[in-house]
Amino acid sequence: MPLDALVFDAYGTLYDVHCVAQRCDSFWPGRGAALSQAWRTKQLEYTWLRSLMRRYAPFSQVTREALEHACASLALPLDAAKAQALMQEYVRLAVYPDVPAALAALKGKKAILSNGSPDMLLPLVSHSRLGFDAVISVDEAKVFKPAPEVYQLAVTQLNISRDRIAFVSSNCWDALGAKAFGFNVYWINRGGAPVDRLGFTPDGVLKTLGDLPEVLL
Amino acid sequence: MPLDALVFDAYGTLYDVHCVAQRCDSFWPGRGAALSQAWRTKQLEYTWLRSLMRRYAPFSQVTREALEHACASLALPLDAAKAQALMQEYVRLAVYPDVPAALAALKGKKAILSNGSPDMLLPLVSHSRLGFDAVISVDEAKVFKPAPEVYQLAVTQLNISRDRIAFVSSNCWDALGAKAFGFNVYWINRGGAPVDRLGFTPDGVLKTLGDLPEVLL
Repeated sequence: MPLDALVFDAYGTLYDVHCVAQRCDSFWPGRGAALSQAWRTKQLEYTWLRSLMRRYAPFSQVTREALEHACASLALPLDAAKAQALMQEYVRLAVYPDVPAALAALKGKKAILSNGSPDMLLPLVSHSRLGFDAVISVDEAKVFKPAPEVYQLAVTQLNISRDRIAFVSSNCWDALGAKAFGFNVYWINRGGAPVDRLGFTPDGVLKTLGDLPEVLL
Repeated sequence: MPLDALVFDAYGTLYDVHCVAQRCDSFWPGRGAALSQAWRTKQLEYTWLRSLMRRYAPFSQVTREALEHACASLALPLDAAKAQALMQEYVRLAVYPDVPAALAALKGKKAILSNGSPDMLLPLVSHSRLGFDAVISVDEAKVFKPAPEVYQLAVTQLNISRDRIAFVSSNCWDALGAKAFGFNVYWINRGGAPVDRLGFTPDGVLKTLGDLPEVLL
């Protein structure tokens, strides 16, 4: 059954968050990869913790706070100029190589559903020159993924029922949160990671976004 | 101002979860420490994700599922017998060396408030021979820390208002969740980690549980 819309996660799925490693490495030679990993890990952790604490803050703030902690944990001295420069990297992340052709080949509505607050997400999408019918931020729900309220935003804004939407994410936990909500879900497993054990399985596990068109449309 | 009750986190605060590394190492020589780290990281991640997904499962199930994922991610073959043996380690975790004397020196009510489900938590407390006035599991609220409903369980069960309770945890995010709820909070920072950036700070940062009595009672 063809579906009516494809909804994509942004960070890690369309845009490579570890692009920041290069700039990190220019500030702290040899430590860029470790910092990028620690930053991303803490960024996600803080989205989950703030959501559970009912202390939502925009992703731009969470990302900056995660950077501060990551630098402190690795004993890398961070000043305001470096923090600003690294945050700037987040609005010009590279698109994964498999993304542009895959998106161009897809019919139906295409949307982004992202943790990113509009101040980060909109400049990034604009910079990447990828075209979408809708760019939806969790900021409207004031809670982060994988809360079901987030996935509901796509249903409401696209005005398409959840069983007619395919959700695509490289973040397994995001894919499974979307599956728990009721989307058709494709996990882009570029790195060959094991599936998360959260009581759900994706409808499809694909190696690249390029595998999507045959599956769906 | 002396307080009326001290409420302790269990795993990582009173009991050393990384005790499991030794048994892990007996199964997969040289990999015990890495597996123990990956297991613990995934265990916490799954508590946050399931809470946000509104798909609570008891900590014993979450812990077993986290073990499966951690082993898969490290390419360590896990069978039912090994899984069972490692889960058994969780009900006989060692108490940190600073714990028994510190608890004995404290006046006032003492309680545990833990993510552990009763099937894991009660045998562990019993095995450790530590005495508490109450052992409270998040299982009653069907959500994990740092959701405020969890910290409310201690208020309700002890029948003591939140501003008369001191909460003690080695998990910084747990300490800050408790602070956001309104407890007086002491973070036991045995490892010298940087404080998490979640919009709150602990009332005190201590190196060991042994520093508590002077502060509080």
